[in-house]
Amino acid sequence: MIKDVEVLNCEYGKNTIKLLRVRREGKKHFIKEVEVCTHLRLTSAQEYLEGDNSAVIPTDTIKNIVLVLAKKDGIQTLEQFTVDICKHFMTTFSQVAYVKTYVQEVPWQRLQENGVPHIHSFICVPDGIRFCEAEQCRNGPLVVFAGIKDLKLMKTTQSGFEGFYKNEHTTLPERNDRILCAELFCKWSYGECRDFDFDCIWNKVRECVLEAFSGPPDCGEYSPSYQKTVNCIQMCILSKVPEVSSFLLNDIHVPACSSQVLVPVETPYGSCTCTLSRKKFLEAQGQVLKVEK
Amino acid sequence: MIKDVEVLNCEYGKNTIKLLRVRREGKKHFIKEVEVCTHLRLTSAQEYLEGDNSAVIPTDTIKNIVLVLAKKDGIQTLEQFTVDICKHFMTTFSQVAYVKTYVQEVPWQRLQENGVPHIHSFICVPDGIRFCEAEQCRNGPLVVFAGIKDLKLMKTTQSGFEGFYKNEHTTLPERNDRILCAELFCKWSYGECRDFDFDCIWNKVRECVLEAFSGPPDCGEYSPSYQKTVNCIQMCILSKVPEVSSFLLNDIHVPACSSQVLVPVETPYGSCTCTLSRKKFLEAQGQVLKVEK
Amino acid sequence: MIKDVEVLNCEYGKNTIKLLRVRREGKKHFIKEVEVCTHLRLTSAQEYLEGDNSAVIPTDTIKNIVLVLAKKDGIQTLEQFTVDICKHFMTTFSQVAYVKTYVQEVPWQRLQENGVPHIHSFICVPDGIRFCEAEQCRNGPLVVFAGIKDLKLMKTTQSGFEGFYKNEHTTLPERNDRILCAELFCKWSYGECRDFDFDCIWNKVRECVLEAFSGPPDCGEYSPSYQKTVNCIQMCILSKVPEVSSFLLNDIHVPACSSQVLVPVETPYGSCTCTLSRKKFLEAQGQVLKVEK
Amino acid sequence: MIKDVEVLNCEYGKNTIKLLRVRREGKKHFIKEVEVCTHLRLTSAQEYLEGDNSAVIPTDTIKNIVLVLAKKDGIQTLEQFTVDICKHFMTTFSQVAYVKTYVQEVPWQRLQENGVPHIHSFICVPDGIRFCEAEQCRNGPLVVFAGIKDLKLMKTTQSGFEGFYKNEHTTLPERNDRILCAELFCKWSYGECRDFDFDCIWNKVRECVLEAFSGPPDCGEYSPSYQKTVNCIQMCILSKVPEVSSFLLNDIHVPACSSQVLVPVETPYGSCTCTLSRKKFLEAQGQVLKVEK
Repeated sequence: MIKDVEVLNCEYGKNTIKLLRVRREGKKHFIKEVEVCTHLRLTSAQEYLEGDNSAVIPTDTIKNIVLVLAKKDGIQTLEQFTVDICKHFMTTFSQVAYVKTYVQEVPWQRLQENGVPHIHSFICVPDGIRFCEAEQCRNGPLVVFAGIKDLKLMKTTQSGFEGFYKNEHTTLPERNDRILCAELFCKWSYGECRDFDFDCIWNKVRECVLEAFSGPPDCGEYSPSYQKTVNCIQMCILSKVPEVSSFLLNDIHVPACSSQVLVPVETPYGSCTCTLSRKKFLEAQGQVLKVEK
Repeated sequence: MIKDVEVLNCEYGKNTIKLLRVRREGKKHFIKEVEVCTHLRLTSAQEYLEGDNSAVIPTDTIKNIVLVLAKKDGIQTLEQFTVDICKHFMTTFSQVAYVKTYVQEVPWQRLQENGVPHIHSFICVPDGIRFCEAEQCRNGPLVVFAGIKDLKLMKTTQSGFEGFYKNEHTTLPERNDRILCAELFCKWSYGECRDFDFDCIWNKVRECVLEAFSGPPDCGEYSPSYQKTVNCIQMCILSKVPEVSSFLLNDIHVPACSSQVLVPVETPYGSCTCTLSRKKFLEAQGQVLKVEK
Repeated sequence: MIKDVEVLNCEYGKNTIKLLRVRREGKKHFIKEVEVCTHLRLTSAQEYLEGDNSAVIPTDTIKNIVLVLAKKDGIQTLEQFTVDICKHFMTTFSQVAYVKTYVQEVPWQRLQENGVPHIHSFICVPDGIRFCEAEQCRNGPLVVFAGIKDLKLMKTTQSGFEGFYKNEHTTLPERNDRILCAELFCKWSYGECRDFDFDCIWNKVRECVLEAFSGPPDCGEYSPSYQKTVNCIQMCILSKVPEVSSFLLNDIHVPACSSQVLVPVETPYGSCTCTLSRKKFLEAQGQVLKVEK
Repeated sequence: MIKDVEVLNCEYGKNTIKLLRVRREGKKHFIKEVEVCTHLRLTSAQEYLEGDNSAVIPTDTIKNIVLVLAKKDGIQTLEQFTVDICKHFMTTFSQVAYVKTYVQEVPWQRLQENGVPHIHSFICVPDGIRFCEAEQCRNGPLVVFAGIKDLKLMKTTQSGFEGFYKNEHTTLPERNDRILCAELFCKWSYGECRDFDFDCIWNKVRECVLEAFSGPPDCGEYSPSYQKTVNCIQMCILSKVPEVSSFLLNDIHVPACSSQVLVPVETPYGSCTCTLSRKKFLEAQGQVLKVEK
């Protein structure tokens, strides 16, 4: 047995806890279906190092607690539910050193019949999945993230890619009119948990993403590269949504050229991941992370 | 080598031919992104039996032809495009004994900004995927099918399941108020290809499915079983949409009970597949298929 | 309500019933993990037409019965288990007009340590998935199929494709040395259920498939097309495995050329589906299905 | 436009570059099929901030370079290839501040016929996928990781979970004989890139994982928890494989009890992620990361 080792991490938890919460206001029903992942790190790693399970909260118990919290308090907003789960584990169990919870929503929308909303029928419309993540170390702040994933957008013009670096391996032609097709993953930080109107902010962020991607409805706006468009989206949100502290955007995209019939290819695909943050947020955290120069 | 064998089938083709067609009306753009599968059976099976490839249209050529047809004629409707592909192969190549084509649409919708439609930006909204299938034997009719797949619906009340057969293995309780959650696959026949307004009919069928599933928006309609609801949907369509000759509906569904927090389970799941047809359609085809009794 | 309709089909059942069966011989353990789908058609369609559930065996009961059968009798072979499930439903329930069962195996293999088999540890090795299907109409024979799916094979030479039909859309070059890469789906009929050594036959079929695909280990065997190779595999099995009555083979394949670095593409992909049968089997069934000529 | 922002990250690259390399020694063929992802961060973020593409190496060029490197030098080992790609980008392009490359192998194995290896035919056997990752900042060390993913193992006894923390939400019974079924993700660090026999080490690590999971073939070894088994695997590797500096293991597992017929459930599932490191490796890096206590 070797002794000169160090434990760098030791987390465990339950993933994909599915639950459906129905709320009834008279005959009108409201639903939230979510998938929850909750992970813990304990103050001691004795279960891992020595096989002593006495501090271990079984993942089965974690699941039960998540279900109980959903039943007791309902799911007001995804963010509030996520925060409540983290708080419950941190305040109830002194052996928990760290808790992280991720909640993802199944995108049910109320059915409409000729414009009339149905009182209890719903359709699944996955045009961008809402999620939330929160984490807390003991004695540290509870920080909250929200996001959108699987949001697929396309613009058929007002996009190009020119003036890039060339060498003997360059085969890509320069273009000032191409199709831009992207699958976006957005995740933003609210910083330390506060009492925000999370539903309202989430919708505002989503609108900003769509607008900054596509430009004005009557003419669009030229994109000189995926990277610049990512930056425009992020700048738009940081200037219009003060509650957002930093914004990560990953987009994946396929090559496409601007003839009348295109042959989309699935692989290989390009991607870029950029994170933009308010300076004051970083300073508040005592971190100044920079791109190295 | 054994001799007393018979060839029961010998088809080949190309699958998942992806293509994106952009149509421009001034500054306004329209798009269709589709995936096409085309399969052929040749009049002789000599490529299969003897390795003589002289009659074989390579799958690479099949792909090229599909792309050329999209470029030349565009994609007016999914159904017209599917029919055109079948007709092209049947009329161009005398060695083709049978052709089948399946086309599925990527569900792009035009982006809206504050109610104003964008001229060239789109979002992917997969709330039920539209597809079409057509097939033809040489000297036979070209028959056309259309459908919707991956349509997920839920109603939180007005559903039950009672009075079923019981024996020593029965553990399911009777319920008169449960949640009904289904993923629908619908496929209907237009019979022999005619000049229908396929877009209009497809939308009408989709509306019928939603209405028959959910009932009136202010009260819903009671479902005594998945099977009966499937029948209601089919009867609704056959009575309201005269162009539809027969209608297959497969739904898959998970058990769920009517407490306030439900735990959806993915597997095992139930399903039922029922096909209902107009009698005159069957008689016209000279087939009378019945459920055996 | 319209009246001139005919029910063409009305099936229901339970899918993906997962179960793991452990058998212990002293300290040595044997396992079978399977997924089962069982579907029924009832003699009356009154549950579907009239909402009368009195003959309906709930899918929950179907699941319970499958689990009970696995517990009581174990899983000797996939085929025997599949047959037993069908027989149980047909003999127990007079309202069942038709039963179909599909069983698929999770490919666990016993772990070896330096050549010594472990008494109770297993590893999942999905190099071709074994499955079985059986079906029976009331008063009809119980017919049994077995199969292999997701079997991926590649040969880096001894394959070509030449002499095919050419026209203005042909871009594929003729080749006498290309790479052949295929994903095989095989399904064969045992005809009416008899007392075969199913494990032994399944392994023999799998060996035949590998041998006929690849040829002798020291030189291989030239394939002039996918179709001919499919035929060779089928002829090999029908001549060497007398228990097999007919053999369906679907292979899907991607284009690849014979340079030193290839770029595999996922889509579009070609496929061919061919079924070869013993004549006497067809005659016994009173069916003579032919490729039309 | 707001000004007080900071760029936290700005990466881009190409994902899932598929390639198949065939090496021929006389009539005997050897293959490597891999998927490559390569990502870059540039010294300036001007493409992202200002839309100036002059320093951007297009993802299309990245793909071309990966293919050229595979063609020129072949793929000796996954690790050497991964390192070579990183080195190429760092030494060729002065504008690259950081490069990361991930390479994953398609698990082809040479076919055997009655124990005789085939000269050019292969079968895909995905019993644990090999991957490698390398990264380098300009002026920093090139660090190399290797790993195994999708490795599914089961032991039918010699596992329990007792003495855990209990409260009012505990429903899990204590067990001293349960089935342990896990899907492992292993990733280990070689530290700074050196001239190791990577194939030999990878196989040794895999063997250690299997042995430590399952114990001696004639009796197994008792596991008091997933966490302890994860620790045993890691300790085994750090003591037997000196080239490994640190070892991350994530396992995901489903609940299962020890009756004769089990019903595996897919969700929710538990997981644990633990990383164990040599102290001297951490000290060399000037990092001392600890589980907080």
